[in-house]
Amino acid sequence: MFIRNAWYVGAWSHELASEEMLSRRLLGENILFFRTATGRMSALRDRCSHRFAPLSLGRREGDCIRCMYHGLMFDADGKCVEEPGRSGVSPNTDVRSYPTVERYKQIWIWMGDSTLADPGLIPDCRFQDDPDWASIPAYIHYNADYRLILDNLLDFSHLAFVHEKTLGGSTTIAQTRPRVERVGDSVRFARWYMNEPEIAPYLRGFNTFDGPVDRWQIYEMHIPGNVLTMDSGSAPAGTGARNGHRVPEAMQFRSVQAITPEDDQSSHYFWTYAHGFNAKDQELTHKLTDRIAEGFEEDRRMIEAQQRAINDSGNDQMAFILADNGLALGRRMIEGRIASEIRAGQTTKGMSVA
Amino acid sequence: MFIRNAWYVGAWSHELASEEMLSRRLLGENILFFRTATGRMSALRDRCSHRFAPLSLGRREGDCIRCMYHGLMFDADGKCVEEPGRSGVSPNTDVRSYPTVERYKQIWIWMGDSTLADPGLIPDCRFQDDPDWASIPAYIHYNADYRLILDNLLDFSHLAFVHEKTLGGSTTIAQTRPRVERVGDSVRFARWYMNEPEIAPYLRGFNTFDGPVDRWQIYEMHIPGNVLTMDSGSAPAGTGARNGHRVPEAMQFRSVQAITPEDDQSSHYFWTYAHGFNAKDQELTHKLTDRIAEGFEEDRRMIEAQQRAINDSGNDQMAFILADNGLALGRRMIEGRIASEIRAGQTTKGMSVA
Amino acid sequence: MFIRNAWYVGAWSHELASEEMLSRRLLGENILFFRTATGRMSALRDRCSHRFAPLSLGRREGDCIRCMYHGLMFDADGKCVEEPGRSGVSPNTDVRSYPTVERYKQIWIWMGDSTLADPGLIPDCRFQDDPDWASIPAYIHYNADYRLILDNLLDFSHLAFVHEKTLGGSTTIAQTRPRVERVGDSVRFARWYMNEPEIAPYLRGFNTFDGPVDRWQIYEMHIPGNVLTMDSGSAPAGTGARNGHRVPEAMQFRSVQAITPEDDQSSHYFWTYAHGFNAKDQELTHKLTDRIAEGFEEDRRMIEAQQRAINDSGNDQMAFILADNGLALGRRMIEGRIASEIRAGQTTKGMSVA
Repeated sequence: MFIRNAWYVGAWSHELASEEMLSRRLLGENILFFRTATGRMSALRDRCSHRFAPLSLGRREGDCIRCMYHGLMFDADGKCVEEPGRSGVSPNTDVRSYPTVERYKQIWIWMGDSTLADPGLIPDCRFQDDPDWASIPAYIHYNADYRLILDNLLDFSHLAFVHEKTLGGSTTIAQTRPRVERVGDSVRFARWYMNEPEIAPYLRGFNTFDGPVDRWQIYEMHIPGNVLTMDSGSAPAGTGARNGHRVPEAMQFRSVQAITPEDDQSSHYFWTYAHGFNAKDQELTHKLTDRIAEGFEEDRRMIEAQQRAINDSGNDQMAFILADNGLALGRRMIEGRIASEIRAGQTTKGMSVA
Repeated sequence: MFIRNAWYVGAWSHELASEEMLSRRLLGENILFFRTATGRMSALRDRCSHRFAPLSLGRREGDCIRCMYHGLMFDADGKCVEEPGRSGVSPNTDVRSYPTVERYKQIWIWMGDSTLADPGLIPDCRFQDDPDWASIPAYIHYNADYRLILDNLLDFSHLAFVHEKTLGGSTTIAQTRPRVERVGDSVRFARWYMNEPEIAPYLRGFNTFDGPVDRWQIYEMHIPGNVLTMDSGSAPAGTGARNGHRVPEAMQFRSVQAITPEDDQSSHYFWTYAHGFNAKDQELTHKLTDRIAEGFEEDRRMIEAQQRAINDSGNDQMAFILADNGLALGRRMIEGRIASEIRAGQTTKGMSVA
Repeated sequence: MFIRNAWYVGAWSHELASEEMLSRRLLGENILFFRTATGRMSALRDRCSHRFAPLSLGRREGDCIRCMYHGLMFDADGKCVEEPGRSGVSPNTDVRSYPTVERYKQIWIWMGDSTLADPGLIPDCRFQDDPDWASIPAYIHYNADYRLILDNLLDFSHLAFVHEKTLGGSTTIAQTRPRVERVGDSVRFARWYMNEPEIAPYLRGFNTFDGPVDRWQIYEMHIPGNVLTMDSGSAPAGTGARNGHRVPEAMQFRSVQAITPEDDQSSHYFWTYAHGFNAKDQELTHKLTDRIAEGFEEDRRMIEAQQRAINDSGNDQMAFILADNGLALGRRMIEGRIASEIRAGQTTKGMSVA
């Protein structure tokens, strides 16, 4: 079950050059992306209305796509504009199109009721498009329900164990209770680890200072669309980071992590992890991204194993522990949104053609 | 759902040498073919009646097959003739046998009510066994419902798109309405494209004349058994082909294409494409067959992609277009036959032992 | 459907060295085996109580296992002894543990009601741990329902066909009716083939005598736990083996074959085939084991093919033959035990935490 009335990240902008088409499965539907001559982004259901041949096996003709089975042609709005062998077209031959917005180096798509597709609802991800913050667009494919990935992000206590030798490095992380609160459609977290003896393992060799450290992770999970935006970092202990004073040698990050369901048990994970220190050092950007990616692989292995165990567990109940408060809040918000979409007569699949 | 009371092509004759056994899945059942010493063809359910071990793991003993699990032996009619350790055999130990006919270089099998298995119902496929017409027996395996393959053959407008650079080569094909009529249990088509500027791409280099061309495809799809028989060709424009006058330099073909369901979503495709011009030129036969096979691969790729999209589409409805008249007629005939078999108490699986 | 109140072989002892963990799927559940510092064997459900992460992705800490997702720690009895970030632990966080016994070089596990787990119920398999009998622990993985493997062992007539050139070698085997009787929870068989012209093919070259032979197979299938224990051999014909007199040159064997369901359609097969003649000849032990393994592979190929045919057969009924008396008795005993466990309120999955 997916929230449909939300902006999801469908692709990185760079995945779609001017002449190409990109087919990707999102929320259980195959979507075909392409750009018109003016650069406008089109997103159509990747399925001809006639006999369901994939349009991605078709070809571009100007700003249109021709199905290469029986030759129906569709414009960038999905309207059928040609049916070979007749003037005009038969009824019900349009294919569904979806609202899109290109922003923050990403293509955002709205797969619910298109009358509600307000671009103002897209979360602020400007740090992945800000020259003062250096990052590399990255992608991971998950064989897991998107909700398990959200669970993971809604409880950072796992950093002490899953990422013991990479992103974590301190048992303090698991012993610390974060501040957790609901703010609108987001869950907001603030985690502080004060006067820790050392920085996280993945930062070793890149440190801008020595000695004890104050670490923080302040982040929001935007529930519709599954977008995490985070302010995190490490500053010399006692220099006032917690009170808002970030000294120049602080190693600060801004991360965006967007999880888009592919299907019931597979997901797309688009992420950046921008560093604000030594932001012009491209070699540093690559090395940091590699180390963070290594940590994210640790998550993937654990979560995919968890998915297999869940599939094997029938109706067995998980135990709730104290650290689950963020996770439980996130799940309730998802369920609430899906329930209200169902009440509004919107099923998870099959909306009226836009 | 399959029509059971029909002759289907089960194999090419050359697939079954004298001493061999051939196991092939047809209409959702594994069938074991073998020849007796006198050359008679036997077709048995490939499953021992006792513990369901495959008889294809057994061995020939004279004109019998012995199951090599516990040793029951069956004659060419499926009758259990030996049960080790006793005289006589236990009840209900026969395996089902199926009527077969070997004709036109093919083994035809009847998997319905064997009392209705009249060999006179086999369509006329003599051109694949006629020395004046040269062809090579060919086979394609499809991961698709047989009905999607029939749909393809019941609407040749796809030649303009799927086969743009091979078998088609002209948008006239999609713009032309064929004559479509039901004749008995067949759908009959006549398609004429007059005074076209050139021959189809697959014929280039093999042409017997230059200049404009009159092309035709006159074919029948025999619904029970899914056998297409076709008269097609290209003649110099204006030489009277449409009025029945086929000049010697006309490039004439006779094709047989038989689609036998393997299972719900996989099919066997047996085909020949005999040429009547330069019929003694074996190199030409090979080259033409290769080019036609290339075109048939284009169909397979499209239809298998279509099958995957259909499986992903729940109850979504396809749109009907004007070109669908032949396809719609074929589907109605299939549904009518299956419905009447069901009314007659014949399920799609499990008939009484012959 | 599995009998739960039974001792099953879970592993060979040698598979689990002192520091390691072993995860294996048994009766549809993933089980984690490990030894404590004192050598005691622990068997836990391989699934954290919290978010179902596999404990086999965790790590040993002394005699405990720590889940490396969120850090819960469990002792060798499955009791949750630590939840990071709080004193004490949340409710319902224990994981299930299972009674085990290490005996006869094997780890036995009881996956039913642990109050019934009497070690005295383990069948006598002492010959695989007896210095006068030489054997090599062996293992085969089967993609088949355990009951099909039992069927095979409950009717040795198949030796004449499946093992014609290996373990069998005589049609007498299929023509001979064994004595079959129920003794408690076992089916007991006695098969004698007197004055046969030669020994079985797998013994050729290892023979301790020449000339005609009296062969026997006397075995029990212990239904709960699926353990076959067998006395088999070949003696010079007429030397009184059937009357209990085993001459020194008799080639005697003691075999243990334990089949533990992995899941509905896959099984573990643990076996030894100890020889009492020339028991100090290690090269002989290896060669004999290789030849017997070759025979067991013949079973596996046949039974896995049978499983596929059964899956393809819907509700079709198998025919019963005279040789099926042992098989039918074994099946009735299994069904009776499972039915009584269901009546007692024990489902096949999910028992109360021990």
